[in-house]
Amino acid sequence: VLNVQSPAEVERAIQQVFGHLLTDIESVGLFASLGRMLASDIVAEQYVPGFDRSTVDGYAVWAADTFGASFATPAMLSCRDGASIGEKPQPLEKGQCQYVPTGGEIPQGADAMVMIEDVEDYGDGMKYVLRPTAPGRHIGFRGDDVSPGKCVMRAGWKIRPQDIGTLAALGIQTVAVRKKPVVGILSTGDELVDIHVSPERAQIRDVNTYTLSVGVLSSGGEPVRYGIIKDDYVFIKNAIVDALRECDIVLLSGGSSVGTLDYARQVIEALVLQYSDSKILLHGIAIKPGKPTLISSIRGKPVFGLPGHPMAAYLMYKTFVSPLIAQMMGHKEEHPTQKAILSVNIPSNNGREELAPVKLSEKAGCWTADPIMGKSGLISILSEAGGYVRIPRDQEGAMANTEITVYLL
Amino acid sequence: VLNVQSPAEVERAIQQVFGHLLTDIESVGLFASLGRMLASDIVAEQYVPGFDRSTVDGYAVWAADTFGASFATPAMLSCRDGASIGEKPQPLEKGQCQYVPTGGEIPQGADAMVMIEDVEDYGDGMKYVLRPTAPGRHIGFRGDDVSPGKCVMRAGWKIRPQDIGTLAALGIQTVAVRKKPVVGILSTGDELVDIHVSPERAQIRDVNTYTLSVGVLSSGGEPVRYGIIKDDYVFIKNAIVDALRECDIVLLSGGSSVGTLDYARQVIEALVLQYSDSKILLHGIAIKPGKPTLISSIRGKPVFGLPGHPMAAYLMYKTFVSPLIAQMMGHKEEHPTQKAILSVNIPSNNGREELAPVKLSEKAGCWTADPIMGKSGLISILSEAGGYVRIPRDQEGAMANTEITVYLL
Repeated sequence: VLNVQSPAEVERAIQQVFGHLLTDIESVGLFASLGRMLASDIVAEQYVPGFDRSTVDGYAVWAADTFGASFATPAMLSCRDGASIGEKPQPLEKGQCQYVPTGGEIPQGADAMVMIEDVEDYGDGMKYVLRPTAPGRHIGFRGDDVSPGKCVMRAGWKIRPQDIGTLAALGIQTVAVRKKPVVGILSTGDELVDIHVSPERAQIRDVNTYTLSVGVLSSGGEPVRYGIIKDDYVFIKNAIVDALRECDIVLLSGGSSVGTLDYARQVIEALVLQYSDSKILLHGIAIKPGKPTLISSIRGKPVFGLPGHPMAAYLMYKTFVSPLIAQMMGHKEEHPTQKAILSVNIPSNNGREELAPVKLSEKAGCWTADPIMGKSGLISILSEAGGYVRIPRDQEGAMANTEITVYLL
Repeated sequence: VLNVQSPAEVERAIQQVFGHLLTDIESVGLFASLGRMLASDIVAEQYVPGFDRSTVDGYAVWAADTFGASFATPAMLSCRDGASIGEKPQPLEKGQCQYVPTGGEIPQGADAMVMIEDVEDYGDGMKYVLRPTAPGRHIGFRGDDVSPGKCVMRAGWKIRPQDIGTLAALGIQTVAVRKKPVVGILSTGDELVDIHVSPERAQIRDVNTYTLSVGVLSSGGEPVRYGIIKDDYVFIKNAIVDALRECDIVLLSGGSSVGTLDYARQVIEALVLQYSDSKILLHGIAIKPGKPTLISSIRGKPVFGLPGHPMAAYLMYKTFVSPLIAQMMGHKEEHPTQKAILSVNIPSNNGREELAPVKLSEKAGCWTADPIMGKSGLISILSEAGGYVRIPRDQEGAMANTEITVYLL
């Protein structure tokens, strides 16, 4: 068991112990695949376009027939009828032309298109081409877009609206995606009450069940809520064992008072001894806020003990749990960021990496980050925070008027 | 009827004609409110915290009792028991102290906390304070976070996970949000086939139904799919009339061949004459791709005729329809953008604003935008585009190695 590690060490430890975890594959319809992660590469099985086709309205010709054509000396070609839809056109002979609309198939033999505005018709069954064309002009060739065997999307890719366009164009109706990791959410602490209860003195509402549940939804996982568990060894043990049976990841969060998570820690230590493929990865992270975070593996499943303070719990969730949920679907998550100018100094952080919530504002394309500090309470921070700044432990705070990277929330 | 307007003029015209449209209000549970738009301000009705409370584990004191205290000359205070949870504590008298855990209520009379590590206990019922404290030290005062009447979120705000934390902390269980605008999606063009059909020659799969449906989902609207409508005046009229009855916005898209949207245009012109509160806003936009876009108001509802080419249709959707969907929920949508360095020149665009799809890549915090140009077909563009660059019509293209703004897709 390693105590109080740096965030980078924690990320490496999580990667080392849980990096192999992947959820099962399931097949979903095209509309339902939005935002899901591909379980396998999408490989084209056909040519797109499936045949050489015109990119303009005009006449298919032998390009050589039009060489030297001009307004004064047009090339005279005999015009034949086009094939009906679905009928394979006959080869075009030298000296012939055939009308082809945009998207229509180029008849065999023809090697170029002439645009309709470059052709005169005097009603004698012939077409008079006023300008030369060149081989390949105005033709989209078979397979120009995609050929069989081309990989158009990689496994692990998160499906966007335009990707559904790609899949639709390829005629793909169902997609193999990774199942959503099921994430159990437990709150412990006798001072916690559900949000419909009006808190008595010394009680506080259980905010973490809400922020963590919708956080899991946003990360693409499926939250399962176990609610508030009484601060008692047996109750907590039963709840964790239930959650381990039903979920892929378990998140516990303590209340804000001293001593919470103590039973949770004892339970986790006991379960680690009881089951194989179990260990405690770490007991603390050198990060502010978030130090009391506890990360363990029980029967190979990640179990996180998060701080009780909702902002701290949510920041730990975004920093360590959300990337793991993505990874279990085969997706490498890039935390979205925004460059911004820091409005005031953030002071030194005394040897711990600091995650400092900031308020973001934009003016004429320039972003400003205002740290939310001092006595600001929970609700003020939650409603104002647009992101957070990571200040490494070896850095003496962050200076006003410098450009910083904001991790968006 | 104004023809071929600039994108900025189009945005103004949409704002002028549809700027007053708002969907109805509905009430949803807290978990379901993620990503929805608030219909009214969220105003606190209580103090948070509801009482003065300690931010540390320690002893509540009269600060003046500790002035001058030191390790050599500690302040001696008589320690009394704390109140039970829910019981109103008695006022603390001068010379007394009382243990208060983090989050616990400060007894009346006390005006400061002393941290537990600054107190010695020799078992004689007294506490020896080794360091002075100051009035207000380590106390979170009633209403420090929020007071009744404080607006914590404005109407129109899009609810994020941390906002659900704010609502939970305030004990709010249901939220008034704007209903999702219902958006009807119709495809016209006899060359279109549904994606489960293997296209015959000259047929193409109906991609727009898919990209526009999931685009609407992403924008927070509710898509209703009417499928492929036969290219016939009566069929199209019936479908539009149905969609107008059932939806808040109607999106039509044509096939890629010449002449498509002709019947749609005739139907729209007839409906505009037939119904009051109807007009055609414009027949074309000076934008590439997307010129054939038709925007009308029928019985006060927005009806968009979009280009047949899926990338063009989707870009027009993102540029003009998605912000309107947001606005109908009272939300001002900022299109997410990313600054990037353009990898190669984008040539001049001949008097039309151009939306140029680009591929985005990142290396060490620096983003590069590669234009997807030339013969790249539909599928290649759809799967590679991470965003698009807007090149104003009065600008001679865009230069390589300059910083540009990419509108993310």
